[in-house]
Amino acid sequence: MLAVAVEEARMGLASGGIPIGAALFGGDGSVWGRGHNRRVQDGDASMHAETSAFRAAGRRRSYRGTTMVTTLSPCWYCSGLVRQFGISHVVIGEARTFSGGHPWLEEHGVTVTLLDDPACVAMMESFIAERPELWYEDIGQD
Amino acid sequence: MLAVAVEEARMGLASGGIPIGAALFGGDGSVWGRGHNRRVQDGDASMHAETSAFRAAGRRRSYRGTTMVTTLSPCWYCSGLVRQFGISHVVIGEARTFSGGHPWLEEHGVTVTLLDDPACVAMMESFIAERPELWYEDIGQD
Repeated sequence: MLAVAVEEARMGLASGGIPIGAALFGGDGSVWGRGHNRRVQDGDASMHAETSAFRAAGRRRSYRGTTMVTTLSPCWYCSGLVRQFGISHVVIGEARTFSGGHPWLEEHGVTVTLLDDPACVAMMESFIAERPELWYEDIGQD
Repeated sequence: MLAVAVEEARMGLASGGIPIGAALFGGDGSVWGRGHNRRVQDGDASMHAETSAFRAAGRRRSYRGTTMVTTLSPCWYCSGLVRQFGISHVVIGEARTFSGGHPWLEEHGVTVTLLDDPACVAMMESFIAERPELWYEDIGQD
Protein backbone atom coordinates (compact mmCIF):
# COMPACT_ATOMS: atom_id res chain seq x y z
CA MET A 1 0.00 0.00 0.00
CA LEU A 2 2.92 2.37 0.67
CA ALA A 3 3.86 2.17 -3.03
CA VAL A 4 0.72 4.12 -3.99
CA ALA A 5 1.54 6.89 -1.51
CA VAL A 6 5.18 7.02 -2.68
CA GLU A 7 4.05 7.25 -6.30
CA GLU A 8 1.84 10.20 -5.31
CA ALA A 9 4.73 11.88 -3.47
CA ARG A 10 6.94 11.52 -6.56
CA MET A 11 4.22 12.98 -8.78
CA GLY A 12 4.03 15.91 -6.39
CA LEU A 13 7.79 16.45 -6.55
CA ALA A 14 7.83 16.15 -10.35
CA SER A 15 5.20 18.90 -10.61
CA GLY A 16 7.28 21.28 -8.45
CA GLY A 17 5.54 20.54 -5.17
CA ILE A 18 6.13 19.12 -1.73
CA PRO A 19 6.85 15.36 -1.95
CA ILE A 20 4.26 13.93 0.41
CA GLY A 21 1.70 11.44 -0.87
CA ALA A 22 -1.19 9.51 0.63
CA ALA A 23 -3.96 7.09 -0.21
CA LEU A 24 -7.13 6.02 1.58
CA PHE A 25 -8.00 2.32 1.27
CA GLY A 26 -11.33 0.71 1.98
CA GLY A 27 -11.60 -2.32 4.24
CA ASP A 28 -11.49 -4.57 1.16
CA GLY A 29 -8.12 -3.13 0.07
CA SER A 30 -9.50 -1.03 -2.79
CA VAL A 31 -8.24 2.53 -3.25
CA TRP A 32 -10.96 5.01 -2.25
CA GLY A 33 -8.84 8.05 -3.00
CA ARG A 34 -5.22 9.09 -3.48
CA GLY A 35 -3.44 12.42 -3.64
CA HIS A 36 -0.44 14.52 -2.82
CA ASN A 37 0.29 17.87 -1.23
CA ARG A 38 -1.08 20.66 -3.51
CA ARG A 39 0.26 23.80 -1.79
CA VAL A 40 2.46 24.79 -4.72
CA GLN A 41 0.44 23.37 -7.61
CA ASP A 42 -2.94 24.84 -6.58
CA GLY A 43 -1.78 27.55 -4.17
CA ASP A 44 -3.89 25.59 -1.69
CA ALA A 45 -2.65 25.48 1.89
CA SER A 46 -5.46 23.15 2.92
CA MET A 47 -4.44 20.28 0.66
CA HIS A 48 -1.94 18.22 2.57
CA ALA A 49 -1.45 14.72 1.14
CA GLU A 50 -3.89 13.05 3.54
CA THR A 51 -6.63 15.65 3.09
CA SER A 52 -6.14 15.39 -0.67
CA ALA A 53 -6.61 11.58 -0.57
CA PHE A 54 -9.60 11.98 1.75
CA ARG A 55 -11.17 14.52 -0.59
CA ALA A 56 -10.58 12.28 -3.62
CA ALA A 57 -12.54 9.53 -1.84
CA GLY A 58 -15.69 11.68 -2.10
CA ARG A 59 -18.58 11.59 0.35
CA ARG A 60 -18.69 8.42 2.47
CA ARG A 61 -21.07 7.36 5.17
CA SER A 62 -18.46 5.64 7.33
CA TYR A 63 -14.69 5.23 7.46
CA ARG A 64 -14.78 2.21 9.73
CA GLY A 65 -12.22 -0.33 8.55
CA THR A 66 -10.37 2.10 6.28
CA THR A 67 -6.60 2.64 6.17
CA MET A 68 -4.86 5.93 5.48
CA VAL A 69 -1.38 5.38 4.07
CA THR A 70 0.97 8.35 4.04
CA THR A 71 4.64 8.78 3.24
CA LEU A 72 5.17 11.02 6.31
CA SER A 73 3.87 11.17 9.88
CA PRO A 74 0.57 13.12 9.79
CA CYS A 75 0.63 16.67 11.15
CA TRP A 76 -2.03 17.77 13.67
CA TYR A 77 -4.36 18.85 10.87
CA CYS A 78 -4.22 15.43 9.20
CA SER A 79 -4.21 13.58 12.52
CA GLY A 80 -7.39 15.44 13.44
CA LEU A 81 -8.91 14.30 10.15
CA VAL A 82 -8.15 10.66 10.98
CA ARG A 83 -9.59 10.94 14.47
CA GLN A 84 -12.73 12.88 13.54
CA PHE A 85 -13.75 10.54 10.73
CA GLY A 86 -12.89 7.33 12.55
CA ILE A 87 -10.30 6.07 10.07
CA SER A 88 -9.24 2.77 11.65
CA HIS A 89 -5.62 2.36 10.64
CA VAL A 90 -2.77 4.66 9.62
CA VAL A 91 0.33 3.39 7.81
CA ILE A 92 3.24 5.84 7.87
CA GLY A 93 6.29 5.77 5.60
CA GLU A 94 8.51 7.55 8.09
CA ALA A 95 8.52 9.85 11.12
CA ARG A 96 12.22 10.79 11.19
CA THR A 97 12.06 14.05 9.25
CA PHE A 98 8.78 15.13 10.90
CA SER A 99 6.82 13.60 13.75
CA GLY A 100 3.20 14.69 14.03
CA GLY A 101 0.16 13.35 15.85
CA HIS A 102 0.51 9.59 15.36
CA PRO A 103 1.21 8.77 19.07
CA TRP A 104 -1.97 10.76 19.92
CA LEU A 105 -3.92 8.73 17.36
CA GLU A 106 -2.70 5.50 18.95
CA GLU A 107 -3.84 6.75 22.36
CA HIS A 108 -7.28 7.29 20.85
CA GLY A 109 -7.69 3.82 19.40
CA VAL A 110 -6.27 4.18 15.89
CA THR A 111 -3.97 1.35 14.80
CA VAL A 112 -0.68 2.95 13.70
CA THR A 113 1.98 1.16 11.63
CA LEU A 114 5.25 3.04 11.32
CA LEU A 115 7.42 1.59 8.54
CA ASP A 116 10.60 3.72 8.76
CA ASP A 117 11.09 3.38 5.02
CA PRO A 118 14.54 4.57 3.85
CA ALA A 119 13.25 5.83 0.46
CA CYS A 120 10.64 8.01 2.20
CA VAL A 121 13.28 9.39 4.58
CA ALA A 122 15.67 10.17 1.70
CA MET A 123 12.96 11.92 -0.33
CA MET A 124 12.01 14.26 2.55
CA GLU A 125 15.60 14.88 3.71
CA SER A 126 16.55 15.97 0.23
CA PHE A 127 13.46 18.15 -0.14
CA ILE A 128 13.89 19.88 3.25
CA ALA A 129 17.57 20.58 2.48
CA GLU A 130 16.68 22.11 -0.88
CA ARG A 131 13.48 24.02 -0.02
CA PRO A 132 13.42 24.71 3.73
CA GLU A 133 11.25 27.85 3.37
CA LEU A 134 8.57 25.89 1.54
CA TRP A 135 8.67 23.05 4.04
CA TYR A 136 8.31 25.32 7.09
CA GLU A 137 5.49 27.19 5.37
CA ASP A 138 3.67 23.90 4.86
CA ILE A 139 3.74 22.98 8.53
CA GLY A 140 3.07 26.53 9.73
CA GLN A 141 6.40 27.11 11.46
CA ASP A 142 7.68 30.68 11.51
CA MET B 1 -16.54 39.09 13.73
CA LEU B 2 -19.15 36.40 14.38
CA ALA B 3 -21.51 38.17 11.93
CA VAL B 4 -19.26 37.21 9.00
CA ALA B 5 -19.27 33.54 10.03
CA VAL B 6 -23.06 33.58 10.54
CA GLU B 7 -23.53 35.14 7.11
CA GLU B 8 -21.44 32.32 5.64
CA ALA B 9 -23.48 29.69 7.51
CA ARG B 10 -26.71 31.19 6.14
CA MET B 11 -25.31 31.19 2.61
CA GLY B 12 -24.45 27.51 3.09
CA LEU B 13 -27.99 26.75 4.25
CA ALA B 14 -29.54 28.73 1.40
CA SER B 15 -27.55 26.69 -1.14
CA GLY B 16 -28.80 23.39 0.32
CA GLY B 17 -25.81 22.70 2.55
CA ILE B 18 -24.79 22.35 6.17
CA PRO B 19 -25.14 25.70 7.99
CA ILE B 20 -21.67 26.16 9.46
CA GLY B 21 -19.63 29.21 8.53
CA ALA B 22 -16.18 30.52 9.41
CA ALA B 23 -13.77 33.33 8.71
CA LEU B 24 -10.05 33.81 9.33
CA PHE B 25 -9.01 37.30 10.40
CA GLY B 26 -5.52 38.75 10.34
CA GLY B 27 -4.04 40.43 13.40
CA ASP B 28 -5.17 43.82 12.04
CA GLY B 29 -8.82 42.68 11.89
CA SER B 30 -8.96 42.28 8.11
CA VAL B 31 -10.66 39.21 6.63
CA TRP B 32 -8.04 36.83 5.19
CA GLY B 33 -10.58 34.26 4.07
CA ARG B 34 -14.17 33.20 4.71
CA GLY B 35 -16.20 30.16 3.79
CA HIS B 36 -18.81 27.59 4.71
CA ASN B 37 -19.16 23.84 4.73
CA ARG B 38 -19.14 22.55 1.11
CA ARG B 39 -19.98 18.86 1.58
CA VAL B 40 -23.27 19.09 -0.29
CA GLN B 41 -22.49 21.87 -2.75
CA ASP B 42 -19.15 20.44 -3.98
CA GLY B 43 -19.51 16.84 -2.84
CA ASP B 44 -16.36 17.65 -0.86
CA ALA B 45 -16.02 15.98 2.54
CA SER B 46 -12.78 17.87 3.25
CA MET B 47 -14.35 21.32 3.19
CA HIS B 48 -15.62 22.02 6.66
CA ALA B 49 -16.29 25.71 7.34
CA GLU B 50 -12.92 26.34 8.99
CA THR B 51 -10.88 24.54 6.32
CA SER B 52 -12.85 26.44 3.69
CA ALA B 53 -11.99 29.80 5.29
CA PHE B 54 -8.35 28.70 5.72
CA ARG B 55 -8.16 27.69 2.06
CA ALA B 56 -9.70 30.99 0.95
CA ALA B 57 -6.91 32.81 2.80
CA GLY B 58 -4.38 31.37 0.33
CA ARG B 59 -0.75 30.63 1.12
CA ARG B 60 0.53 32.46 4.18
CA ARG B 61 3.92 32.41 5.84
CA SER B 62 2.59 32.69 9.39
CA TYR B 63 -0.73 32.59 11.23
CA ARG B 64 0.59 34.25 14.36
CA GLY B 65 -1.94 36.78 15.64
CA THR B 66 -4.80 35.47 13.49
CA THR B 67 -8.31 34.65 14.70
CA MET B 68 -10.52 31.86 13.36
CA VAL B 69 -14.18 32.64 13.92
CA THR B 70 -16.63 29.78 13.51
CA THR B 71 -20.33 29.38 14.18
CA LEU B 72 -19.79 25.95 15.81
CA SER B 73 -17.16 24.32 18.03
CA PRO B 74 -14.41 22.98 15.73
CA CYS B 75 -14.27 19.21 15.20
CA TRP B 76 -10.95 17.37 15.60
CA TYR B 77 -10.09 17.93 11.96
CA CYS B 78 -10.55 21.71 12.23
CA SER B 79 -9.01 21.82 15.72
CA GLY B 80 -5.94 20.09 14.29
CA LEU B 81 -5.79 22.75 11.59
CA VAL B 82 -5.77 25.52 14.21
CA ARG B 83 -3.05 23.83 16.26
CA GLN B 84 -0.81 22.88 13.35
CA PHE B 85 -0.79 26.31 11.78
CA GLY B 86 -0.49 28.23 15.03
CA ILE B 87 -3.71 30.21 14.71
CA SER B 88 -3.69 32.29 17.89
CA HIS B 89 -7.34 32.76 18.76
CA VAL B 90 -10.58 30.88 18.07
CA VAL B 91 -13.99 32.52 18.49
CA ILE B 92 -16.88 30.02 18.62
CA GLY B 93 -20.55 30.80 18.11
CA GLU B 94 -21.73 27.87 20.18
CA ALA B 95 -20.75 24.44 21.52
CA ARG B 96 -24.17 23.19 22.67
CA THR B 97 -25.15 21.21 19.58
CA PHE B 98 -21.62 19.84 19.05
CA SER B 99 -18.52 20.09 21.20
CA GLY B 100 -15.23 19.37 19.44
CA GLY B 101 -11.58 20.06 20.25
CA HIS B 102 -11.73 23.56 21.70
CA PRO B 103 -10.75 22.54 25.28
CA TRP B 104 -7.74 20.71 23.77
CA LEU B 105 -6.79 23.87 21.87
CA GLU B 106 -6.92 25.88 25.09
CA GLU B 107 -4.62 23.34 26.75
CA HIS B 108 -2.18 23.90 23.91
CA GLY B 109 -2.04 27.67 24.17
CA VAL B 110 -4.79 28.81 21.82
CA THR B 111 -7.04 31.56 23.18
CA VAL B 112 -10.62 30.33 22.95
CA THR B 113 -13.70 32.57 23.21
CA LEU B 114 -16.99 30.70 23.44
CA LEU B 115 -19.95 33.02 22.79
CA ASP B 116 -22.95 30.72 23.29
CA ASP B 117 -24.89 32.68 20.69
CA PRO B 118 -28.63 31.80 20.62
CA ALA B 119 -28.97 32.37 16.85
CA CYS B 120 -26.12 29.90 16.16
CA VAL B 121 -27.69 27.33 18.50
CA ALA B 122 -31.11 27.71 16.85
CA MET B 123 -29.67 27.36 13.35
CA MET B 124 -27.87 24.08 14.15
CA GLU B 125 -30.71 22.64 16.26
CA SER B 126 -33.12 23.16 13.41
CA PHE B 127 -30.69 21.71 10.85
CA ILE B 128 -29.88 18.60 12.92
CA ALA B 129 -33.60 17.95 13.50
CA GLU B 130 -34.33 18.23 9.77
CA ARG B 131 -31.28 16.47 8.28
CA PRO B 132 -29.75 14.16 10.92
CA GLU B 133 -28.26 11.76 8.32
CA LEU B 134 -26.38 14.63 6.66
CA TRP B 135 -25.16 15.98 9.97
CA TYR B 136 -23.80 12.63 11.19
CA GLU B 137 -22.15 12.04 7.83
CA ASP B 138 -20.37 15.38 8.18
CA ILE B 139 -18.83 14.50 11.54
CA GLY B 140 -18.09 10.89 10.60
CA GLN B 141 -20.47 9.25 13.06
CA ASP B 142 -21.97 5.93 12.04
